[in-house]
Parts: sequence; C-alpha cells; structure tokens
Amino acid sequence: MRHFTNVKDLGDLNIALKEAFEVKANRFGYKELGKNKTLIMIFFNSSLRTRLSTQKAAMNLGMNVMVLDINQGAWKLETERGVVMDGDKTEHLLEAIPVIGCYCDVIGVRSFARFENKADDYEEKIINQFIQYSGRPVFSMEAATRHPLQSFADLITIEEYKKTARPKVVLTWAPHPKSLPQAVANSFAEWMNETDYDFVITHPEGYELDPKFVGKARVEYDQRKAFEGADFIYAKNWSAYTDPNYGKVINTDRSWTVDAEKMALTNNAYFMHCLPVRRNMIVTDEVIESPQSIVIPEAANREISAQVVLKRILESL
Amino acid sequence: MRHFTNVKDLGDLNIALKEAFEVKANRFGYKELGKNKTLIMIFFNSSLRTRLSTQKAAMNLGMNVMVLDINQGAWKLETERGVVMDGDKTEHLLEAIPVIGCYCDVIGVRSFARFENKADDYEEKIINQFIQYSGRPVFSMEAATRHPLQSFADLITIEEYKKTARPKVVLTWAPHPKSLPQAVANSFAEWMNETDYDFVITHPEGYELDPKFVGKARVEYDQRKAFEGADFIYAKNWSAYTDPNYGKVINTDRSWTVDAEKMALTNNAYFMHCLPVRRNMIVTDEVIESPQSIVIPEAANREISAQVVLKRILESL
Amino acid sequence: MRHFTNVKDLGDLNIALKEAFEVKANRFGYKELGKNKTLIMIFFNSSLRTRLSTQKAAMNLGMNVMVLDINQGAWKLETERGVVMDGDKTEHLLEAIPVIGCYCDVIGVRSFARFENKADDYEEKIINQFIQYSGRPVFSMEAATRHPLQSFADLITIEEYKKTARPKVVLTWAPHPKSLPQAVANSFAEWMNETDYDFVITHPEGYELDPKFVGKARVEYDQRKAFEGADFIYAKNWSAYTDPNYGKVINTDRSWTVDAEKMALTNNAYFMHCLPVRRNMIVTDEVIESPQSIVIPEAANREISAQVVLKRILESL
Repeated sequence: MRHFTNVKDLGDLNIALKEAFEVKANRFGYKELGKNKTLIMIFFNSSLRTRLSTQKAAMNLGMNVMVLDINQGAWKLETERGVVMDGDKTEHLLEAIPVIGCYCDVIGVRSFARFENKADDYEEKIINQFIQYSGRPVFSMEAATRHPLQSFADLITIEEYKKTARPKVVLTWAPHPKSLPQAVANSFAEWMNETDYDFVITHPEGYELDPKFVGKARVEYDQRKAFEGADFIYAKNWSAYTDPNYGKVINTDRSWTVDAEKMALTNNAYFMHCLPVRRNMIVTDEVIESPQSIVIPEAANREISAQVVLKRILESL
Repeated sequence: MRHFTNVKDLGDLNIALKEAFEVKANRFGYKELGKNKTLIMIFFNSSLRTRLSTQKAAMNLGMNVMVLDINQGAWKLETERGVVMDGDKTEHLLEAIPVIGCYCDVIGVRSFARFENKADDYEEKIINQFIQYSGRPVFSMEAATRHPLQSFADLITIEEYKKTARPKVVLTWAPHPKSLPQAVANSFAEWMNETDYDFVITHPEGYELDPKFVGKARVEYDQRKAFEGADFIYAKNWSAYTDPNYGKVINTDRSWTVDAEKMALTNNAYFMHCLPVRRNMIVTDEVIESPQSIVIPEAANREISAQVVLKRILESL
Repeated sequence: MRHFTNVKDLGDLNIALKEAFEVKANRFGYKELGKNKTLIMIFFNSSLRTRLSTQKAAMNLGMNVMVLDINQGAWKLETERGVVMDGDKTEHLLEAIPVIGCYCDVIGVRSFARFENKADDYEEKIINQFIQYSGRPVFSMEAATRHPLQSFADLITIEEYKKTARPKVVLTWAPHPKSLPQAVANSFAEWMNETDYDFVITHPEGYELDPKFVGKARVEYDQRKAFEGADFIYAKNWSAYTDPNYGKVINTDRSWTVDAEKMALTNNAYFMHCLPVRRNMIVTDEVIESPQSIVIPEAANREISAQVVLKRILESL
C-alpha cells in the first residue's frame, strides 16, 4: 500500500482486521521496519487523538517522527496557483510539499473541509496535492471528506464488541453549536458499506450526506425508529451537505441528543463516538459514562489502525 | 512509586538523595528501563525548564516522549461536569484524560492555579482528575499548589552546596508585577519541613501561606532580620493566599527586592530561585550574577529530580 | 569545529564539500556519533525547512532532539541587561541561555534581524550571547546577518549542477511586500566570495549590501545586463541596509521579478531561491516550475549541510 485515503486502499478488510489484531497483540514486534525511517505529520487543523495515536504507532514501529503545525511556528501557506503572493501567505504549497517530502519517508496530513468551495473540499484538493507533489507515500489523518484512520479504528472496535455476526449499526446525527465537516460520517458510512452489517443512517431533514457515501445504507428520518434493536449507536454531528446549505448549521434541535431513554429502545447497544464530543449536546453525561459507552476503547484503537497503515506503507517502501 | 505530586510520595529523602547522586553520576546507566515506554507531557501552561529537563530525563532513560500543549494545536478542554458544551470548549477532560492514557505509559501534567476558585485550586482538581481517570502513573510538572520536581531539585542543590550539617535556609517573598501561584513557595516549605535545616519564611503582612505548608517553619516579617546568618536565600514571589485577597497582588514594594546590601547580612549565603526570575524586581543584576548565585546549577538539577521520579515510576510498572 | 556562524568556521571548503557528498551518500553511517547526545533547536522566528532538515540531520546522526519555540509554550525573553523586568517579559536571556545549555550537548539558534537597532543586528547580539553564556557548541539556524546552513546548501547545489569549472553566479534582488533581513543575501555573497566563481550582485539603487559581505563581487545595477551569460540565477529579496533606510522597503518594482524573458538572457541558467518564495513577486510561476528550477534539490541539501555541521560539532565534543 502506497497511499491511504479511503477504505479501498486497504484491500480486503478481513485481512486488514486480522493484521490489526496481530499488531495489537504485539505492538513492538515490527520495530525493525521503521529503522532510519522518518514520518512527518502535518496539521492544518487541531488534533489530540490523531496527533498522539499516530505518533505512538510510528514509534512502536521504530520510526522517527517530526510534527509540523502549519501556522504555528511555520509559514502560512498559499494553496491557489497563479496568485501574486503579496499578502500574508509566505509560501506556496507547490514548494512546501516537495520540500517536506525531501526530509522524510512518509507523510501524514490533516486538512479539514474549509467550507469555502464545495468542489475544492469534495475533490480533496489539499491531500491530493500532497500525493501529487511530495514524492512520498501520503496517508490521511482526516481530510476534507473522509477520516479513514478513525473509520478503521471504528471497525476494529465493532469487531471486538459485536455479539452477533451481523450487528445492527446506526449512525445518528446529533446537535452541535458549530459547523463541522461531514468527513467522519462520510467515512464511517463508506466503511460500514464494505461490511455485511445492517447499517442505518438517521438524521433530520436537510442533513442528507453525499449519496456516494450513503451507498446501500438505509436512511431513516425517525431517530427512535432507527434506534430500535440497534447493537451499536454511532453518534456524530455534521453540517449540511446539500446546496444551498453546504457547511451550514441548519438545526440544533436537542431532541436529537442521544440520551438514556433513547438508548433503552436499542438491543442494549454500545455507544460510540470518534471524540472530541460535546457532552449534553451530542450525548448526555449519563450515556457516555454508562458501561455501554465504548468511546475510550474506540479511541485506543486509533493507535492500532495507524500502526497497520504505517506498517503496510513501510513494507511497500 | 506510582504517582508523584508531593514530598511524601518519595518516601525517605535520604534514600532519594542518594539515588539522585547516583543518577547524576550515571545518567545513561538506566536506559533499558524506558525501552518501549512512552511519556506524554501535558502543558496547560508555559514551560521552559520543566519542558526541557523532563524530556531530557525521559530520553536519558530511553523513553519516547510526546509533548502536548493544550490550546496550541489541541482542543480546548472543559473541566466541569454537567455542562451543556455549546461554547468554545470542544472536549471534556473526562474523555481527554483516559484517551491520553491509552497512548502512553506515564503522564506528566502542568496545570497552574487558576485563581477562579480557591477550593478548586487547593483541592488540586486538575491533576487529581488525571490520577483518577487516566489509568496511568501521573507526576506533577507543577500543579496548583505544589511544584515538587522543583523542590526536589532545590533539595539536591542545597545538599551539594551546604557547608554545615544544618544550614539556615530562608524563603523570602519578593515583588513581582503579576499574580503568581503559591505553588513553588508552598512546595519549598513542604520539603524544607521534611529536613532538619533551620528554615525561616519571610514576607510582608498579608502574604501568609497556607498553614498546612508553613508547618514548623519560623515566620519573620522583618526581611533583614530573617537574612541574618542565612546560608541560603531562596527568593520567590507569590500572590496572597489569605481571603479575601486570594490570588491578588497586594504589594509590589521594591524594598523587598534581594540586593547586595541585604545579602551582606547573611553568612555569605548562596542565592537561589526556581526561575524564570524578573531581574531588578525579585533580585538585582548584581546578586544574580554574583559567584554566590547558584540558580543555574539549581536548574540543572531539574533533570536529575525528574530522572529519579521517572526511574522510580518505570521500576513500578 | 565548535561553533558555526559563518563560512570561516568550516575551514577549507573543498574538504567540506567532499564531506558533504560522503554524508549524502551514507546518511546513517555516522549514527554512533550522536548516541546519548541531545540537540536543542531554539526558534525565535518561524521555520519550515530549517526546522525539518536540521532535525532530520540530527536524527540521521542518532541524536535526540528537543525543539523550543520561544513565545509559543515558553516564556517571553528579555534581552537587555539592567532592565527592571516589570513588563510582559518573564525571563532574561542571561538565565535562559545557560539553563538551556544544562539540558543538551549542542544548541541551534534561529534569531532574525529585528530592525530595531542596526548595530545590535550587525553585532549578532542574540547568537553571540548564546555562544558566550550557554557553555555549549552553538550553530546558526539563521542569525541577524547570515544564514550559513543555507549558503552551504547553496554551494553544494551549485557544485552538483555546474557545467563549467567557474560558473557565472548572479545574486539578484527581487520585489517583496514586506521587510526582510539581509541575512540570506549577505551570507550567499560571503560564501560565493570564498569560491572562484564569477560572482555578480544586481539590485536597484538603494539596496546596496554591507561592503563587508559584498567583498570582491561585481555589483551591476542593470538586472538584464547582469543576467547575460549567467549559469545560476539566485533570487532573493532583502530590505535596505544603508542608512537612513535600514530595514525599510524602498522599492517593490515588479519589473525586477524574475521571469522567462529575463531567464532567456542567461546561459540556460538554473534558478535558485532559499525558499519560502512569493510567487509572481520574486519569480513567476513559469520560471519556478521550469526544468531549470532547482529550488527543491537546493532545499533537500539543507539536510546535508546541517548534517556536516552537526557531525563536525559532535566529533569535537
């Protein structure tokens, strides 16, 4: 595997899951792979889990790691070609990317949707420029439309906790005060569609995701009905995808908050969320602190998904 | 030793000092201890010495280190339970702490007094949540009421420089334009009270420290009288502890600045300060540049105190 | 070699170049040199290439690296002696420098010209204080008047690409909206003057560099004439050096932008720039994207110049 930006890059998911459990059982068993290899992690946006878990995964593999926070201690970057650069941006991505590629063997990039131009976001303009110009393997640490390291960790977690071969998994929209990308929801749907789980998406009218990601999922506008018999509730906020509301918050209805009364409709479902989560907006204190909440083991699996991805990239060098 | 937040965690100080001198003589002699072990250092506040010395100590022990500056490249954290998180804080400590614990073996935390709520500060709400929820050994890199890595380094330094078995050690308040925590002063007093040194605290009226930390120390309001015959002058500013002035600057009287004329009252005392120090407020250029100033060797011992603490934590894993 | 701030520190350039090519062919061949050695990189200013390439070079040599961004997570530093520190600066360089020296074996410093006081800048007040007070070998990661790691990388690059023994190398001023230091231009001139290349400097009236750096170079005010027959065009903006305009932008004439029409006057010259570069101010998209542009291999050689410097410092410890 050279680049990792979506589920297809990983190939057969059963093989990938097997590899994940091997890595989890023996994190330091592949330390020679990363010897004298350097990872550069580039953040255009904030990060806690991704920053720590990816770095940990790289160190497990014996790699050196450098972290670059764009706009904190580095130069501001221009991303448009043809611009007369007489403003506040000091460097162009077209130089910065190949330069970064000079000093490392693998590049991880985090760059969220900007909500300035839907086509730019959905064409994954930033990460694709890294793939095109860096000369190095590139993996997504959350791009404009997908967060595949998260989705892979989600899949690992569901496999660890599922009680039936084909669990019912429900992705539910939940309210949030600010405009968030669709990346986690898109990506989760993309990965669930690659499994044979019973997969349902529920959200208010106007929050329809890109059909490319919805795929074969059932969409249910009645959250309670969606929750019935569910084995996993995966909560997430996202802003509107559909024009003319792209990137807008059109609803903050707290009746969509995941609470104990709604969880009682499920088949004693596990509660999942990618974190960070806003308590008492997305989910009540009661539910997230309940024994059915598996948000922490889910986060812990971020180290494993990152390590499988880095391991495969290192093996391909 | 699992956690390290105060002098009691270290047990017998003579044994700890012996270990410190062993480590100082052989910094790289324990490198196998930290193999495949990861330290995460979390800073809610700025740091220079603590950042560098603790990281150096961990690397001496062969550990991997990740540094997380909260509010710089990470999410803003909510610390109160029950809040509807619809403001600027994106994540709750109750998720962030156990997540951080997933990716490491040891956690160091710096979190100063906030002066919003005296009880919260003096109950050490932040670091205690890390101890309670992280599932990992936690050590203080300066908490709301204590700075034990500093105090341990101070003790090592006094032991290295003392000329008599029972030196006279004076902690003197000195002026400063801004409101500073009592942590360094509290902690220094706590540690000195565990020795048999002749320990005196001097400060203006209104700057009384928490009696829990003052302990058996003699308090002297006349700075000159306190300095008489002293072997070590330990200068530090702190804001008021006593209500209703908690956290306030009630005095910036520069007659309390440590200068050469006052140092002449001592028994040719060494001058100490934890740094950073504001020159010509806390101490004159002349005194801090004099041969009796041992602020640099004192700072150098921060690497040693951190290494002893990390070594003991690693040994207990 | 103990310190590295200018071309003279490197001694014979032919020997240094030979060492550079050896290091480039065998980056991990000197890994034992840096074992248990720690580099602290201190940034008073932003950095991308220097940050990554120097860290990479140190890791190639097996060193541990700590990065300190002053004013980001550390304290603000006072640089003047005798000040009553009652403002926003928390620590004095006179303490910070020897303290930093306690926790490492080698120090790299980036500190640009501040344009507050020409004498302070041209006496290299900041980096010289590090040399004087740190007790450690110090190297420049760009100081007020020179950027020797860049110039060394430039020299390596010219040696790799030159087609004649004595190429014509032209340093050309180009327009920029903000006030930039003279460091890169000074330093490039200083290094070129140590070679037997045919070296020409071209700039508008009023942009004369310090004669100390111009040395034996030919100065040509007609940019087109300067470009004739050139083998290498090295573009860079700098602000005025000459009083009373020190540090000022006195010209943003875009007729000085390097474009294809001017490049056609040369002997099919290579285009060089230290980066970051403002496109369509300094150079057109067309020229920087042309096959003659060698800005990326030039940047890649920053790892090599840093590794030679660190290797020599480590050998001298």
